[in-house]
Amino acid sequence: MKERDNERWQKPDGRQMNLTRNDCAAMDVGDPLAHARERFCLPKDIIYLDGNSLGALPRATPDRIAKLLTDEWGDGLVRSWNMHDWIGMPARLGAKIAALIGAESGEVIVADSTSVNLFKLAGAAMRLQSPRRIVLSERGNFPTDIYVLQGLEALLGGTVTLRLVERDEIPEALGDDIALLVLTHIHYKSGELHDMRTLTARAHACGALVLWDLSHSAGATELFLDFDGVDLAVGCGYKYLNGGPGAPAFVYVAGRLQGLLQPPLSGWMGHASPFEFGDEFVSAAGIKRQLCGTPAIISMAALGCGLSTFDGVDMRDVRSKSIALGDLMLALVGQYCPGIEIACPADGKNRGSQIALRHAQGYAIMQALISRGVIGDFRAPDIVRFGFSPLYVRFVDIWDAVATLAEILADDSWSDPRFQSRSTVT
Amino acid sequence: MKERDNERWQKPDGRQMNLTRNDCAAMDVGDPLAHARERFCLPKDIIYLDGNSLGALPRATPDRIAKLLTDEWGDGLVRSWNMHDWIGMPARLGAKIAALIGAESGEVIVADSTSVNLFKLAGAAMRLQSPRRIVLSERGNFPTDIYVLQGLEALLGGTVTLRLVERDEIPEALGDDIALLVLTHIHYKSGELHDMRTLTARAHACGALVLWDLSHSAGATELFLDFDGVDLAVGCGYKYLNGGPGAPAFVYVAGRLQGLLQPPLSGWMGHASPFEFGDEFVSAAGIKRQLCGTPAIISMAALGCGLSTFDGVDMRDVRSKSIALGDLMLALVGQYCPGIEIACPADGKNRGSQIALRHAQGYAIMQALISRGVIGDFRAPDIVRFGFSPLYVRFVDIWDAVATLAEILADDSWSDPRFQSRSTVT
Repeated sequence: MKERDNERWQKPDGRQMNLTRNDCAAMDVGDPLAHARERFCLPKDIIYLDGNSLGALPRATPDRIAKLLTDEWGDGLVRSWNMHDWIGMPARLGAKIAALIGAESGEVIVADSTSVNLFKLAGAAMRLQSPRRIVLSERGNFPTDIYVLQGLEALLGGTVTLRLVERDEIPEALGDDIALLVLTHIHYKSGELHDMRTLTARAHACGALVLWDLSHSAGATELFLDFDGVDLAVGCGYKYLNGGPGAPAFVYVAGRLQGLLQPPLSGWMGHASPFEFGDEFVSAAGIKRQLCGTPAIISMAALGCGLSTFDGVDMRDVRSKSIALGDLMLALVGQYCPGIEIACPADGKNRGSQIALRHAQGYAIMQALISRGVIGDFRAPDIVRFGFSPLYVRFVDIWDAVATLAEILADDSWSDPRFQSRSTVT
Repeated sequence: MKERDNERWQKPDGRQMNLTRNDCAAMDVGDPLAHARERFCLPKDIIYLDGNSLGALPRATPDRIAKLLTDEWGDGLVRSWNMHDWIGMPARLGAKIAALIGAESGEVIVADSTSVNLFKLAGAAMRLQSPRRIVLSERGNFPTDIYVLQGLEALLGGTVTLRLVERDEIPEALGDDIALLVLTHIHYKSGELHDMRTLTARAHACGALVLWDLSHSAGATELFLDFDGVDLAVGCGYKYLNGGPGAPAFVYVAGRLQGLLQPPLSGWMGHASPFEFGDEFVSAAGIKRQLCGTPAIISMAALGCGLSTFDGVDMRDVRSKSIALGDLMLALVGQYCPGIEIACPADGKNRGSQIALRHAQGYAIMQALISRGVIGDFRAPDIVRFGFSPLYVRFVDIWDAVATLAEILADDSWSDPRFQSRSTVT
């Protein structure tokens, strides 16, 4: 990102409060990622600030999937496993993700869900670290991370114990008894960012391994997994990677650990020779042993289109714009939305690509926003959350979203009963 | 199926060898399932006898998926989890599968892969059966079943021991020390069928639970899971259920066991209240606790189209036609293909919807068949396998396939070097 643009984006820092919508439009003109918005189908009259729950539809996806269905599946039938290299898809997409997160191509593979992948890596890591038996994680970590670790604890009885501590207690909790530290890099509610490099080093110093959940990081921030010495990571395909609802997830295992980790979910796709149909499980070499069952090719091909939205994109630009979008929203909220509390780091460098606001009527406020075409989401009990996918969110979108929020707060329109009743998924 | 049709189909029983292609065409005319073939897109000049590896493309799938992508994902964005009830898809599709396998709608759910589901159920069953620790299975069972059990054994150390016995030794191996019997109902190579009801009862008599893999059964044979007293089952979505490459799989848990099984893969979608984002895993009631991560909605919607190809279909017709297709192929092979060995049960009632032939040059023979438009598959070391999806395979297809096989065998055309080199997926 050019210095000149950064300067413009840094305008709304609390000292310059007279920002106009035209200023936001000017920021969009200077945005080196502005062209990427064309890569997405975005509905008219919607401001979409929920790419951290479900990324938008890439323009290329419908044609790609139609071709996959009609030509590859319909005409090619079972032959397409070879002819169209479906069998190579998990590693091929893994290599594309590796390029976005600072990893080597043989260190990432696409498979299963984030939850299942957490189980695989945590289970394998605990065997490697035996007789240490404590998994350390953060209270309030994304629930599925905690749930999967609780499941592992229940399954493995006395050999795995989950210990949850408060966020600020993590460094001191890293003692010689810790086998594995499991953290989400960017917190799903607050957007607060852990220092990956420092915490990884701290864990290594006491002999622990670290497993990072990158669900809210991959595709929205710069990552340096290899440089930061990361051991293990998982991440989500359907948020900032734009892979579609329930897209397959990914697994990262540092090259140095790949041969040491025995997968607890040992399905045939992780076998060294799956098509020899032998009676004995022999792990594939490298990252492929992290596969388990047959990959969901249709969903995986959609993820491929999601990853292609990053073609030619510099992740430094993504990170800079992400911070600028957040800074802008915080400045505008501070100016126009009294009565709502900021619940995320004010300093962009400690924040992921999202803003969290706190309000007792958060649920109803979000419903009111959605009814006016501003889609963010609500996280219980009181967090209003806005995620910024730097590939398609514009600075004027932030302006318009805050303007709408300000209206709703000013006239208490959230108190309309139709915004109060809860639906299943929020 | 009408008696008259059965009689006609029973012609090729070894006593009537003068069957002509016209006779086969007449069988198609009398086929009560003939209309179902229109529900599929099948390439011209291809005889597809590999629906047990990958089912054919349903005609409805491309439009349904296009609508899902453009309207539901593209326009609806994250709102479609509620608006289009994506969140209910696993249970909704589960109910459709339940109707095909003799189960109640609340006993089946769609999730993950067959391998992952095997792990879930076997892991939960072993906890329930503790202190018994032996899992009994069949040597030569489908590899992923064995591999997953080996992975569970390695993970759980002394509390799970896998014991593999020969097929005919299973009844006597069912002693008071067996915790769990894991069998594939229809063998992937030989097509041989286990007596589900008798073996389940035999296992129960010694206090064992039974987990059936229905991957080669669901959609191709009649199943009576509840009536047969089955405890647990898993199955595949991409074979006879026509769900597309790597379609999500399914899980069956008998109602009486649902509350007793604690899932070892405890992801957020199996939580009683996933959107409350609490720190403590509490299993959902009923079959929903078998969910783990976020479901792969695009692949799942394609499975929905696959299941709709069974709308209005009587599974008794499916089973009768499946046997008749197999009987026809065996009779024709016996007559026209000397030198190839029958490697599946001759009696249709002991056989799934497939025929296995054995030949030392099986791989090359299958490659030669494929080059002439007859697609079956090869299973190492020497099995040539043909699967019959009764919804779209015709009796004339069997005639034409055997005629092609007879030509290839008669002139040794399999010995062409281009048919000898192995590709990745066979």
